[in-house]
Amino acid sequence: MAIHSSVAGNPSEPPPAPYATPMSESGVLEVRLPPPTTTVKKLRHRLSEIFFPDDPLHRFKDQTVSRKFILGLQFFLPILQWAPHYTLKLLKSDVVSGLTIASLAIPQGISYAKLANLPPIIGLYSSFVPPLIYSVLGSSRHLAVGPVSIASLVMGTMLHEATSEEDQPALYLQLAFTATFFAGLFQASLGFLRLGFVIDFLSKATLVGFMAGAAVIVALQQLKGLLGIVHFTSKMQMIPVLSSVFTQKDEWSWQTIVMGVCFLIVLLGTRQISMRNPKLFWISAAAPLTSVILSTALVACLKSKLPGIQTIGKLPKGVNPPSANMLFFSGRYIGLAIKTGLITGILSLTEGIAVGRTFATLKNYQVDGNKEMMAIGLMNMSGSCASCYVTSGSFSRSAVNYNAGAQTVVSNIVMAATVLITLLFLMPLFRYTPNLILAAIIITAVIGLIDYKSAYDLWKVDKLDFLAAMCSFFGVLFISVPLGLAIAVGISVFKILLHVTRPNTVPLGNIPGTRVYQSLHRYKEAIRIPSFFILAVEAPIYFANSTYLQERILRWIREEEEWLASHSSNNLKCVILDMTAVTGIDTSGIDLIIELRRMLNQRSLKLVLVNPVGGVMEKLHHSNILDSLGLEGLYLTVGEAVEDISSSWKAQP
Amino acid sequence: MAIHSSVAGNPSEPPPAPYATPMSESGVLEVRLPPPTTTVKKLRHRLSEIFFPDDPLHRFKDQTVSRKFILGLQFFLPILQWAPHYTLKLLKSDVVSGLTIASLAIPQGISYAKLANLPPIIGLYSSFVPPLIYSVLGSSRHLAVGPVSIASLVMGTMLHEATSEEDQPALYLQLAFTATFFAGLFQASLGFLRLGFVIDFLSKATLVGFMAGAAVIVALQQLKGLLGIVHFTSKMQMIPVLSSVFTQKDEWSWQTIVMGVCFLIVLLGTRQISMRNPKLFWISAAAPLTSVILSTALVACLKSKLPGIQTIGKLPKGVNPPSANMLFFSGRYIGLAIKTGLITGILSLTEGIAVGRTFATLKNYQVDGNKEMMAIGLMNMSGSCASCYVTSGSFSRSAVNYNAGAQTVVSNIVMAATVLITLLFLMPLFRYTPNLILAAIIITAVIGLIDYKSAYDLWKVDKLDFLAAMCSFFGVLFISVPLGLAIAVGISVFKILLHVTRPNTVPLGNIPGTRVYQSLHRYKEAIRIPSFFILAVEAPIYFANSTYLQERILRWIREEEEWLASHSSNNLKCVILDMTAVTGIDTSGIDLIIELRRMLNQRSLKLVLVNPVGGVMEKLHHSNILDSLGLEGLYLTVGEAVEDISSSWKAQP
Repeated sequence: MAIHSSVAGNPSEPPPAPYATPMSESGVLEVRLPPPTTTVKKLRHRLSEIFFPDDPLHRFKDQTVSRKFILGLQFFLPILQWAPHYTLKLLKSDVVSGLTIASLAIPQGISYAKLANLPPIIGLYSSFVPPLIYSVLGSSRHLAVGPVSIASLVMGTMLHEATSEEDQPALYLQLAFTATFFAGLFQASLGFLRLGFVIDFLSKATLVGFMAGAAVIVALQQLKGLLGIVHFTSKMQMIPVLSSVFTQKDEWSWQTIVMGVCFLIVLLGTRQISMRNPKLFWISAAAPLTSVILSTALVACLKSKLPGIQTIGKLPKGVNPPSANMLFFSGRYIGLAIKTGLITGILSLTEGIAVGRTFATLKNYQVDGNKEMMAIGLMNMSGSCASCYVTSGSFSRSAVNYNAGAQTVVSNIVMAATVLITLLFLMPLFRYTPNLILAAIIITAVIGLIDYKSAYDLWKVDKLDFLAAMCSFFGVLFISVPLGLAIAVGISVFKILLHVTRPNTVPLGNIPGTRVYQSLHRYKEAIRIPSFFILAVEAPIYFANSTYLQERILRWIREEEEWLASHSSNNLKCVILDMTAVTGIDTSGIDLIIELRRMLNQRSLKLVLVNPVGGVMEKLHHSNILDSLGLEGLYLTVGEAVEDISSSWKAQP
Repeated sequence: MAIHSSVAGNPSEPPPAPYATPMSESGVLEVRLPPPTTTVKKLRHRLSEIFFPDDPLHRFKDQTVSRKFILGLQFFLPILQWAPHYTLKLLKSDVVSGLTIASLAIPQGISYAKLANLPPIIGLYSSFVPPLIYSVLGSSRHLAVGPVSIASLVMGTMLHEATSEEDQPALYLQLAFTATFFAGLFQASLGFLRLGFVIDFLSKATLVGFMAGAAVIVALQQLKGLLGIVHFTSKMQMIPVLSSVFTQKDEWSWQTIVMGVCFLIVLLGTRQISMRNPKLFWISAAAPLTSVILSTALVACLKSKLPGIQTIGKLPKGVNPPSANMLFFSGRYIGLAIKTGLITGILSLTEGIAVGRTFATLKNYQVDGNKEMMAIGLMNMSGSCASCYVTSGSFSRSAVNYNAGAQTVVSNIVMAATVLITLLFLMPLFRYTPNLILAAIIITAVIGLIDYKSAYDLWKVDKLDFLAAMCSFFGVLFISVPLGLAIAVGISVFKILLHVTRPNTVPLGNIPGTRVYQSLHRYKEAIRIPSFFILAVEAPIYFANSTYLQERILRWIREEEEWLASHSSNNLKCVILDMTAVTGIDTSGIDLIIELRRMLNQRSLKLVLVNPVGGVMEKLHHSNILDSLGLEGLYLTVGEAVEDISSSWKAQP
């Protein structure tokens, strides 16, 4: 084979390796087995790849014991990492951002609590304790912790199966807190067992569709508040919601509608402004609280003239009462509580982690997914003992937090403090806050979840992803929230299986003037090598596709032979399988190769494998088919194979 | 770049392609997009790959209408293909093999029927009609059709949930026939909808474990007949079966045991002989019938002296009575019937297809999986209307058929004829046939299903496959037959997902004296290229692994930089991702690349992609990240990338 001057233009050529290049006497590159290793070693390696891909302990390598201890503390309590070098300058920007998100968190907290059919005060409680706990455990600097719309919606929907807030408020609260506890438990254990990758199965496509669907449902639900309807369905599907909007026409109150629509327009307007010009983020950030104050004042003054307008009513003063005693771990509702916990848990977790990662990458710091999960999980578990329901990192508030220049998690502490003050002194002021404003706030918040841009990108790039998105969208709208999610995940997984079950097989040709072999279909100038057929298999060869591959490869060969016959050129002598992209093989795959080899032999065709990757090479070796294939059946590059074989033909004519 | 004389020693160099080689002015090979095509075209191609991988219609291409018609008929009725050129010579060998399998089919038919808790006569009915139908529709020449042990066992187990043959024989029969009908319907529609690949998800590993487990259960069940126990559990798990063997000690009859064990030893002995020397296959083939005759004679003569021995009893004479009227399509048992149909259907189908394929490849003819499924399905549907229960191609009998020199499916017709004669005239002879002989026959038949050799190979080649096998084995033994199956399938699918979720990433180095880049781990002499880090990703980049890959790649880079720092060699400047084995990408994958590029840019590291396959290239193109990567971010081979980039560095020092 032609030897080139090794890599051209290489500043400092390292000294040649101690051993010769891996050439057999025939001057052909040998295909090597990976260095031998024990099953146990392999298993350990595999497991560490599965559970510790990011090698979280690398900081601890060769450190003194005391240092290790400190690092360990810092690992579990990130606050110890930044607290020591926390400066006044940082504090200033954190205070600003903290106050900003507080002005969002208070109205949103109240609104989202209503979304979950919980008393509004729970929303405020949930904006007080969890942020404090997160600020100690969390490693994201920009996450704004509190209730989130999706989780609230799902909790509201699912718990409704058992009972409603109206019928049995006490039981409903118990259910909510218990579900929250299990959500936290689930989240924490996911992180602790380093099973973080579970949430990866909620693909972006799935989430785009799901979020949009949920947003539409939520927005429609808010027509209740916006139209002043009293008797409204508690169902969460498109049809019942819309029907109960129009069947209850008589309950519409024009005062509510006028006022509601005005505030909605204002809120949407400010949102638009801030989106156009991120510098003006504070406008949309301040808008909700301002409009709450305005509307409350308006109603308080004109309450005699505006009878139709429903208000939140009296809210209890004071900090979170303990609720550990309200958790239950048995009884007929335990199943529902766990189910709700799982689903709200995974949803809020997905949002929290995604948000954390987004802003971390923007500022170039790492958030350890599994650690974050433990933080969020513990936050919810302890929250469930302090009258809080499921919380996580909200995307909208975190964005505001980021734009407001938050530097550390201290902004969460500032927010919590503000909420505390509200809880202690300002609760009476909410007495006349009209529900319509909460509805308007929710609509403005969730409208952002409808991400048609991404949907379009999905369509452009990957039709199957788009399908998954649409399925979860309509699934959520018309079937039910959890089912819509399940369908979408199903489709995403099916997509993976399909990719493996029906892999691509690409015939290769030589690009003239090079030793490069590329797809004949893609590179029109690539030329077939007479009496060779070169096929690249683009998937692991598994039980799920071995039958298909056998049929397909035989068909390729048949078609090739027909083509050759019709062009009366010299007939096929050798089939080369380029295994570069065959990333794995199992016993069925091995059988396929043996089978193929046997069948081609009978048709006096030579079968040659090129460049099997390490794992595949090992399995081929263990299954002893290499003995039958031998060296001349195995090459490192297609070029080598073609040259060596055709020269051997010339040798014995 | 060095130009080689294109492929050495190439007998007839075809004329150079009309267009130039795809070099940009910089003399670097361009990465091409696949030729543009419409979404509809792509979809059509994809679908044809999914449903018509073997291109079943290629025979019809450019043929006259009349020819097409004939081919069409032959396609649906394979008998028309071989019947015209059927010769006396063929007939002779078919008669021999037909009689041979008949001598196996009759005793096995009776035994397997008992295995399904059905009256023995049903087993003979099922060895008469289905083979005839298959001989018209089937395309395998060696399949011996009739009842099979596994399907019989499963049917017996599952139908028992509803009722038992003893309590309500009529209902039980109805259930059996209805289940058979649905099994056939399911099989036929799988074939008709060309969803044949569904059965591929029963991996070899799964089946090895499942068959072994089922065999053990069946064998233990036969202790009933072999020990002469009257009251025996109808459960199908290890524990209940064993317990009822030993709790019923008082029912053991020594005469039965002695006689049974003797015959069992004889049968196993003959089986051993035939296995040692395939030429003597006829010994084991003849053994069952012979021992039935012997034992029957023995019991008939000594029935006064052998009171303890249970016999089959009186069997009705005559051919299959119609049973279409016994099928039901509503009522409380319909669910069970469908479920049983599905599971027995898919199991028998898997066996039938596997057997067909095995012998087809031995004799080098193709069996079209989907066509076979339709044949087997129709056979069972019509069977269910003629008092037959689920049938398929039995492995043991097909092997005998093959060894006996069967040439065409006519051997099945001969067998059916023999069974017919038996049904018409010889039934009374079975009156005194002892159950113990049936037990012995079943044990001998199923013992062959315990394939410890394959199990060992699984262990040697693929530990995860072995795990799957063990799970289905113990699942069947201790939990239940369908559940054991489900678990095993679950594991097999999980294995695929795991492979995608945690793909390999392999750092590459240059093999001195070549332009080949290979794993630094596998090829010790491969050398790192200073200030480059070359990483091969060995899996499609999907939502399920994009997070993992991001973490992992960043970790590789971090470790590389640490290594360089510790060796004080010149620092990292460029990261090359070899995408050759990245066989697919979705939107999450695209995001990963964009993200990675951004992060590396900030660390002033260059990111370069090498040789993305067609599909990936398209998606990259649609997502417009190519604009940002540009030509200098995309190369066809690693060698090119390294040479071009390092020379560009030399250009501007």
